Amino acid sequence: MNDREDLRRLRSEVCTANRALAEAKLAPLTWGNVSGISSRRDIIAIKPSGIAYEDLTPDDIPLVDLDGRVVEGRLRPSTDTATHCAIYRAWPHVGGVAHSHSPYATMFAQARRPIPCLGTTHADHFAGDVPVARQLTAEEVAAGYEEATGKVIVERFAQLDAMSIPGVLVAGHAPFTWGASARAALENAIALEAIAHMALGTMVGLASAIALEPHILAKHRARKYGADAYYGQRERRSP
Amino acid sequence: MNDREDLRRLRSEVCTANRALAEAKLAPLTWGNVSGISSRRDIIAIKPSGIAYEDLTPDDIPLVDLDGRVVEGRLRPSTDTATHCAIYRAWPHVGGVAHSHSPYATMFAQARRPIPCLGTTHADHFAGDVPVARQLTAEEVAAGYEEATGKVIVERFAQLDAMSIPGVLVAGHAPFTWGASARAALENAIALEAIAHMALGTMVGLASAIALEPHILAKHRARKYGADAYYGQRERRSP
Amino acid sequence: MNDREDLRRLRSEVCTANRALAEAKLAPLTWGNVSGISSRRDIIAIKPSGIAYEDLTPDDIPLVDLDGRVVEGRLRPSTDTATHCAIYRAWPHVGGVAHSHSPYATMFAQARRPIPCLGTTHADHFAGDVPVARQLTAEEVAAGYEEATGKVIVERFAQLDAMSIPGVLVAGHAPFTWGASARAALENAIALEAIAHMALGTMVGLASAIALEPHILAKHRARKYGADAYYGQRERRSP
Amino acid sequence: MNDREDLRRLRSEVCTANRALAEAKLAPLTWGNVSGISSRRDIIAIKPSGIAYEDLTPDDIPLVDLDGRVVEGRLRPSTDTATHCAIYRAWPHVGGVAHSHSPYATMFAQARRPIPCLGTTHADHFAGDVPVARQLTAEEVAAGYEEATGKVIVERFAQLDAMSIPGVLVAGHAPFTWGASARAALENAIALEAIAHMALGTMVGLASAIALEPHILAKHRARKYGADAYYGQRERRSP
Repeated sequence: MNDREDLRRLRSEVCTANRALAEAKLAPLTWGNVSGISSRRDIIAIKPSGIAYEDLTPDDIPLVDLDGRVVEGRLRPSTDTATHCAIYRAWPHVGGVAHSHSPYATMFAQARRPIPCLGTTHADHFAGDVPVARQLTAEEVAAGYEEATGKVIVERFAQLDAMSIPGVLVAGHAPFTWGASARAALENAIALEAIAHMALGTMVGLASAIALEPHILAKHRARKYGADAYYGQRERRSP
Repeated sequence: MNDREDLRRLRSEVCTANRALAEAKLAPLTWGNVSGISSRRDIIAIKPSGIAYEDLTPDDIPLVDLDGRVVEGRLRPSTDTATHCAIYRAWPHVGGVAHSHSPYATMFAQARRPIPCLGTTHADHFAGDVPVARQLTAEEVAAGYEEATGKVIVERFAQLDAMSIPGVLVAGHAPFTWGASARAALENAIALEAIAHMALGTMVGLASAIALEPHILAKHRARKYGADAYYGQRERRSP
Repeated sequence: MNDREDLRRLRSEVCTANRALAEAKLAPLTWGNVSGISSRRDIIAIKPSGIAYEDLTPDDIPLVDLDGRVVEGRLRPSTDTATHCAIYRAWPHVGGVAHSHSPYATMFAQARRPIPCLGTTHADHFAGDVPVARQLTAEEVAAGYEEATGKVIVERFAQLDAMSIPGVLVAGHAPFTWGASARAALENAIALEAIAHMALGTMVGLASAIALEPHILAKHRARKYGADAYYGQRERRSP
Repeated sequence: MNDREDLRRLRSEVCTANRALAEAKLAPLTWGNVSGISSRRDIIAIKPSGIAYEDLTPDDIPLVDLDGRVVEGRLRPSTDTATHCAIYRAWPHVGGVAHSHSPYATMFAQARRPIPCLGTTHADHFAGDVPVARQLTAEEVAAGYEEATGKVIVERFAQLDAMSIPGVLVAGHAPFTWGASARAALENAIALEAIAHMALGTMVGLASAIALEPHILAKHRARKYGADAYYGQRERRSP
């Protein structure tokens, strides 16, 4: 069992992150959802389905188990809950997940092209190209659409470190990001949209796709997340 | 006769939807209008012509019959009223209509190109390409411009289901959307603008126009509007 | 002499229009100015130079004569005052002038290309392409830069009706718009930016530049400004 | 020693400029920092690292010496402090420095292309193309990344006047701007983002890159900063 206080705080964080997703203009209408997991990793708090962000309160946030079954709350959880669950089950360092249909990241998802690392803005958040997870087959959709979406995301990271590249584009769909907390997942969603916009302008607007030099990429990661990180006020930040 | 309370609620909904159209930045100056129809389908409430959105109150909303004649209200209805009326007369499931000059949807209307379905954001709102209604002839304009605009919209859907694809681009002009209510028409206007932006970036910015796989399109429709829909808090949502 | 009340109202209108120019995001920093002329057409009220929009009050608005000499006010008028004056002297139906560096209109000005009429949004405000005024020679700049800017604007309209096409792009510089009042000039500045954005997306994004059919253009003008205009709440609106 | 009142005012100005950087949407998350230097040029006030802009108060602003060592304040200064210091040490007329990852300027930095002077908006702030500072070598990064960034910026201006062109794009990274004060550096950051947006649209959207005529460029500089400047309310403004 989780401490009640722990769950209260989790619901509050998840509520705040969902409202911030809309305020950052990443989720028109109700096109996005953020979740977080409890310290014991047995309870997920997630946005309720189809509810306007500006009306959300912590009490509206459903709690589900790692198979997506509601354990508390009067509202139905997001239709994308099974995708979030699959990510939490696969990666033990993920504390929060965010899904949006933010325009520029979605353009890359629709074009089914990874976002190349063209600058330090990208390197500060993603240690390499942001990859594309493959489209689902008709059989996978029939067997369980949202869970299969989670499966192809995890499959795409077989050779990649999910905590160094905390985001993905689902082909023909939209982005998912994650991080150590709901707030970190939200910040990676904001960063992903900004770097998608910058990459589009650089590649298309200016016909340039010079990959950032590896030594610069490594330096920007190290100053934020390395053993001797000196960014921010704490001695070390998790992604 | 309609119940007074029914008309009061209709005017309030239409007023709110018009203000929301401007707040969503879809209608600079006074370039847009939203209407709704009464339960008995004999009275339409619509934005008054040339009035600023932020000044609108429910009492300002004129009521007209299905031929566009004012039955109540001191202000002149939108110049586009006859187009709204033609849509309500043609399609009995339409409860609300929205017209805007939102920039990206208008670019497609000006280019006279349909918006292709490139992703699930599109599929969630429109079950296929958003079509273009043809330009009017000089004779049609002379005989009644706004009514003829409604006629070519209805004509364009001869082989299409208007409730599955609740929107159209009028060639050289701008979009119209509709839905089960004024609010649903507004939401489809917001969705149309977002998918037009995403399609432009995908097609032009990233030189890709991969149509969304039909099994994914069908799944996204089904989870929102199908017999076993599980999106949102109600058992079933109308488009 | 003008009535004091007339000048008080003029200053208030000009102050409001300048603030609205910034709120519409057409003038970053202090890159824009709106003016209006008195009923007797002998006094122009204009934005003071280099003052932040959000700090403006009606008392800050300088009054100048038609040669740009200050007749009242403790602040120096806009550096662009001589351009405004040249427009008022040339065209007796102009009651207000607006200058901005709004991004999309400025892109066309920098490319030195007119904005083609591709749709009804354009036709509602400008009865044909928005033209480009030529660049000044070094001699013209030396003799009086701002006055020469007004001169090339007026020169460009030798064969055009300034009240039907109430705006221009100055080559390598930015747009000027005008209208029956300061508010009308502001509205035309907002419309010009919107149609420049739409034209860029249509021409470049969608590789289309189909000119709007003349009978549609004429109809949209007529329903707003013609002898039998039916747009808005008044029987007739001036541009 | 500096007067306490002088340092109090400096911290307040730097706090205000950092908050304005975020309000102008130039710095998502915490991607930007503004600094200012004391009248005696021995103390620099700069944004603390990793703190949200909306929470900043003047007391949060650290004070450092010209080698970046903290002399007052409980928060760690920006990781980019050494770059700011290098600029202050090189150019005695610089009173403020701003760094952002604003999207359009960053696109040019990522493409490693200078921003050409295509219009008067550009000429009003930058007397010629905004140059690109070269990428750092792996050795330079290892020896001191942020200080080396300052070094390549200063190196790039060996043949240029830093006060006439108060900004630079660091290759693969993002822009830095400066000016007579923290506020002037901020204004140049806002101007740089606007002209990058306009240049991209002009060059790419409209396939035009006509350089602004030198006599117009010179005139726009002179009316703002020349010996007989007449822009603004003071007799003369510094850049």
